[in-house]
Amino acid sequence: MWQTLLALRRGVSTGRPPRGPARPLPPSPAPPEPPRDLAVPNGGWSAAMRRHYRRLLAMAAGGAWARLPSYRRARQHGAAVGGVTPPAQGTPPGDTRLFPRAIEGDGNGFEYAMFLNAAERRLLCLVQPGPYLEGHPGLTHGGAIATIIDSALGTCALAVAGPVVTANLSIDYLAPVPLGAVLLVEGRAERLEGRKAFLSCQVRDADGDTLHARATGLFIQPDPIKLRAQDGDRRQ
Amino acid sequence: MWQTLLALRRGVSTGRPPRGPARPLPPSPAPPEPPRDLAVPNGGWSAAMRRHYRRLLAMAAGGAWARLPSYRRARQHGAAVGGVTPPAQGTPPGDTRLFPRAIEGDGNGFEYAMFLNAAERRLLCLVQPGPYLEGHPGLTHGGAIATIIDSALGTCALAVAGPVVTANLSIDYLAPVPLGAVLLVEGRAERLEGRKAFLSCQVRDADGDTLHARATGLFIQPDPIKLRAQDGDRRQ
Repeated sequence: MWQTLLALRRGVSTGRPPRGPARPLPPSPAPPEPPRDLAVPNGGWSAAMRRHYRRLLAMAAGGAWARLPSYRRARQHGAAVGGVTPPAQGTPPGDTRLFPRAIEGDGNGFEYAMFLNAAERRLLCLVQPGPYLEGHPGLTHGGAIATIIDSALGTCALAVAGPVVTANLSIDYLAPVPLGAVLLVEGRAERLEGRKAFLSCQVRDADGDTLHARATGLFIQPDPIKLRAQDGDRRQ
Repeated sequence: MWQTLLALRRGVSTGRPPRGPARPLPPSPAPPEPPRDLAVPNGGWSAAMRRHYRRLLAMAAGGAWARLPSYRRARQHGAAVGGVTPPAQGTPPGDTRLFPRAIEGDGNGFEYAMFLNAAERRLLCLVQPGPYLEGHPGLTHGGAIATIIDSALGTCALAVAGPVVTANLSIDYLAPVPLGAVLLVEGRAERLEGRKAFLSCQVRDADGDTLHARATGLFIQPDPIKLRAQDGDRRQ
């Protein structure tokens, strides 16, 4: 993120061709396949998950809400929400994965789909925690619930306040979440103050009967002056 | 957890053989392999991770600190810390995984080893976050850091206060954590009040130069009366 912002500021991705003498072009490789959207039903989704997904799709057909696609790599996720797109400086080469999309196998890890209402600064995230997210036997790990909350609030903050980083999360765990449950997470940007975005979150079962967790999140746009100094340190 | 406590109370795992007429015994299957301890060096550990691990092992040789083994399944993890051991009622059949041990491949996900000082109510957790824990490009996801903190504090609370569930986590994210960094997480039970355990946490790079995050955690022993009522509801 920090490096990305600097790269944007320096105009690293200008799209201009490099200067130099003309050379014969190598044969064009096949264009890379577009990244696969993972926020769609698969064989691991339960009937209840599919039913709530169809309900949210119908809501989005009204125009105020938009379904957000979701990808395995962090920069594709950011681009989908209108955030950063160029390759970040300092990103390690090779295979990396967005943490909530890291676990192999349909239904084993996090299954989720997000819907954004930008005008109302609200985000809904439908989630089915799979059997690889275990904490206590049969129940979802507190860290997995924190991951869902950070992802939902971070995406909402990115959409309404631009590139931000998590500065604080405070989570009240109110009722245990069985593995395989279907949750509806609602995030909301309560207010923006300078570089700070204050968000709130509720995690309910998707039928609305149980409040499993509630949280607040503080997200901050990185300070450009500090960023420049840090980047200078890194290059020495 | 809730089900486990009730199962313990009801004596579900008595170890008594079932009654009935004698039948010819089927051929004995090979005994199951013991679970594999994952809190040991593997090909994904960096040189720095190995160096700090040796340092902590040397510290543990003094006797005040104990290295905790770590397993892929939740109930094996609990048993290793002296917590719950019998199979929990309500646990889904089939393959489940402890969330921080769910990602395949040495070095891809969470690599960690915990050391406990029970007398001082302190826990150290050496962690190397891998490339599948990405949030912003090149950096560890806030939910992955929350997962490390919840695991460290939950294990510390379990060791000093018995079976508990997470009730609140509040995390200040102070400096981004690059993928592949080596972190030393220190958890401490500050005080125990009735069924509540109040813990604090600091996440530093293992050389101690940078404080990446600090947190507080409230963990609670489940209320036996509520548990019994909930279990009754579930059985109707």
